[in-house]
Amino acid sequence: MKVAVYRREHFNAAHRLHNPNLDAETNQRLFGKCNNPHYHGHNYDLTVCVVGEVDPITGYVIDTKILSDLIKTYVTEPFDHHNLNLEVEEFKSLNPTAEHIAYVIYERLRPHIAQDKDLKITLYETERNFVEYPIH
Amino acid sequence: MKVAVYRREHFNAAHRLHNPNLDAETNQRLFGKCNNPHYHGHNYDLTVCVVGEVDPITGYVIDTKILSDLIKTYVTEPFDHHNLNLEVEEFKSLNPTAEHIAYVIYERLRPHIAQDKDLKITLYETERNFVEYPIH
Amino acid sequence: MKVAVYRREHFNAAHRLHNPNLDAETNQRLFGKCNNPHYHGHNYDLTVCVVGEVDPITGYVIDTKILSDLIKTYVTEPFDHHNLNLEVEEFKSLNPTAEHIAYVIYERLRPHIAQDKDLKITLYETERNFVEYPIH
Amino acid sequence: MKVAVYRREHFNAAHRLHNPNLDAETNQRLFGKCNNPHYHGHNYDLTVCVVGEVDPITGYVIDTKILSDLIKTYVTEPFDHHNLNLEVEEFKSLNPTAEHIAYVIYERLRPHIAQDKDLKITLYETERNFVEYPIH
Amino acid sequence: MKVAVYRREHFNAAHRLHNPNLDAETNQRLFGKCNNPHYHGHNYDLTVCVVGEVDPITGYVIDTKILSDLIKTYVTEPFDHHNLNLEVEEFKSLNPTAEHIAYVIYERLRPHIAQDKDLKITLYETERNFVEYPIH
Amino acid sequence: MKVAVYRREHFNAAHRLHNPNLDAETNQRLFGKCNNPHYHGHNYDLTVCVVGEVDPITGYVIDTKILSDLIKTYVTEPFDHHNLNLEVEEFKSLNPTAEHIAYVIYERLRPHIAQDKDLKITLYETERNFVEYPIH
Repeated sequence: MKVAVYRREHFNAAHRLHNPNLDAETNQRLFGKCNNPHYHGHNYDLTVCVVGEVDPITGYVIDTKILSDLIKTYVTEPFDHHNLNLEVEEFKSLNPTAEHIAYVIYERLRPHIAQDKDLKITLYETERNFVEYPIH
Repeated sequence: MKVAVYRREHFNAAHRLHNPNLDAETNQRLFGKCNNPHYHGHNYDLTVCVVGEVDPITGYVIDTKILSDLIKTYVTEPFDHHNLNLEVEEFKSLNPTAEHIAYVIYERLRPHIAQDKDLKITLYETERNFVEYPIH
Repeated sequence: MKVAVYRREHFNAAHRLHNPNLDAETNQRLFGKCNNPHYHGHNYDLTVCVVGEVDPITGYVIDTKILSDLIKTYVTEPFDHHNLNLEVEEFKSLNPTAEHIAYVIYERLRPHIAQDKDLKITLYETERNFVEYPIH
Repeated sequence: MKVAVYRREHFNAAHRLHNPNLDAETNQRLFGKCNNPHYHGHNYDLTVCVVGEVDPITGYVIDTKILSDLIKTYVTEPFDHHNLNLEVEEFKSLNPTAEHIAYVIYERLRPHIAQDKDLKITLYETERNFVEYPIH
Repeated sequence: MKVAVYRREHFNAAHRLHNPNLDAETNQRLFGKCNNPHYHGHNYDLTVCVVGEVDPITGYVIDTKILSDLIKTYVTEPFDHHNLNLEVEEFKSLNPTAEHIAYVIYERLRPHIAQDKDLKITLYETERNFVEYPIH
Repeated sequence: MKVAVYRREHFNAAHRLHNPNLDAETNQRLFGKCNNPHYHGHNYDLTVCVVGEVDPITGYVIDTKILSDLIKTYVTEPFDHHNLNLEVEEFKSLNPTAEHIAYVIYERLRPHIAQDKDLKITLYETERNFVEYPIH
């Protein structure tokens, strides 16, 4: 009996879209106002989904308290009230688009979720723009 | 032409997490404050999804009025303003975790949905904790 | 690295459910108050999902600004503040159920999305009734 | 001990903005796409607030079940799935702006709420446009 | 320069509506399914508003971190995952209607908010039923 | 006949809480992680309320299209995708707390709203923290 369990968390961060391998003009053309060198920011809304068999003892796929603690340790504490480009290691060389942030969150959480369970990340940059990773 | 149709309903219920096959101390360790013997409660938010071919006469997969009535009869009327552990037959022997509640809702509705249609349950226990069943 | 990108837009429209190939009495029986000849209306909430590989230069599957402009041109401008039955070509002969509206939106957008990307439409008619198309 | 009690209800209706005392050109200039003669529509979201003393026997200002029934009888049943301009008496001579709809709802409910209680209407035409009446 | 600052918190609790000074039949007539002796429950959503002058040094009326900690200490920790009737002192003799819960929350917080500031409580029992206290 | 009309808009900005008249240590003690010198950010959600008499010709207090354009010109365009501390004139010398941002928005809009109308600003920094200005 497989169930998907979702836990929603939040973080508030500054970022700018900028590919350090491209010149300033190309960055400006590609990313427009999102390329502002003084940064802008978002209330990121994060949903982490874990899919697996229900444990017959607990009735849980995963205790959402444990899932919430993992997200806090590996994602929301290092990201919240920070500048993603300057203060989160992965984004020093990777443009922090919503697509890449979802990928980085997945990579940070994957080692801490049991291997027989699937993991999926949904990241809302705003109420109107959001992404999901991975897609099979 | 296959479409997924969703109908959202609500119910307010009391519950406690408790596995009657385990001793009190193990229940307390596994479920913490959710094990409180005096119960706590939730505004459960339920989305029922039916997937199937669109009927060329009506343009419907299923009339959401009919779907809503089925959910009321088999789920929200028997669950709403009730104590799940004490008053819903299935949970007298099954721990009412969100995973198990979604499973019970699926089992209650499945016989009333045409066999050539798929059924999926999403159950929000809170805005931040929710589950989906089944997962193929 | 495949990611799903979602963009949410809105439009406000009038409609009535009515199959012009059926007589008045059958339409009334099938669609009840939704068949009202004077129309009623909705704030339709539309989410368009594009699934594809992330471009290594931009970090985007698709620029949501471009996706938003496509949706405006082909869907929200022709639908918003209009009467779907009388003023949108496809619904002159097709009953504008949520299922059919999602299908029409898909058909309007599909030619403008790169062929190696998947497209999915979620259409909320109300907070409690919504549909998704296509389903594989 | 005075408390404000709020009850939220919904209705879906068609309307157009049109002042029958003005010519077509002026109506078009004043109301733009909202003046479309074929109508458009909304999911109106209505909150009715009743302010008064808490009854020491019940602990209620007003039973929200009773308040909900009043709103259904006098507002949502006559408005829902209807065309406000053509099918609601008051709007045959009154332009159905959000301001006027809130006023009409107030006038319909006021006689049915005890005189020692205050009544306030909040009407959402969309998530982004809403009004409140009366203002003292 | 006076500003109103709002902080939103949540708690999940069981309750039943029951006036211990009335007989069982009267309680059942007055409170219907809310009088169920086995309890039901809600995800209560609480907004606490503090109105006062902005401090010229901090730019705050009140640090929302401090306000959040006060709400946790005096309201959400003692109420969350508890049975209001059985486990919260005030409701052993007071019917836990939304009106009374808002009043009790106000009384618990008032001594901890500076006297030159106003305090207002908004309590959502469900998305559709909520109350505000006090009203001047 | 007085009505309050509300229009909701959004902007995404970076900021840090910092009083330039205080030393680094005091700023850190007062504002904690919100004082991060590399900035963080928010999806600010803004509701602008205009209260006044309903115009008997239009049925409007104010055309929300005009109100929306004013908000765009004076607030969301200069604030959106910008760094409030570095790029918005008023915050070069004023700590951008939610209280102060609401005050600045009020000051920017007040000259453009007719004098016989009242103006009120509600600013959500997050779903859980918001402010209202002015308060009479």
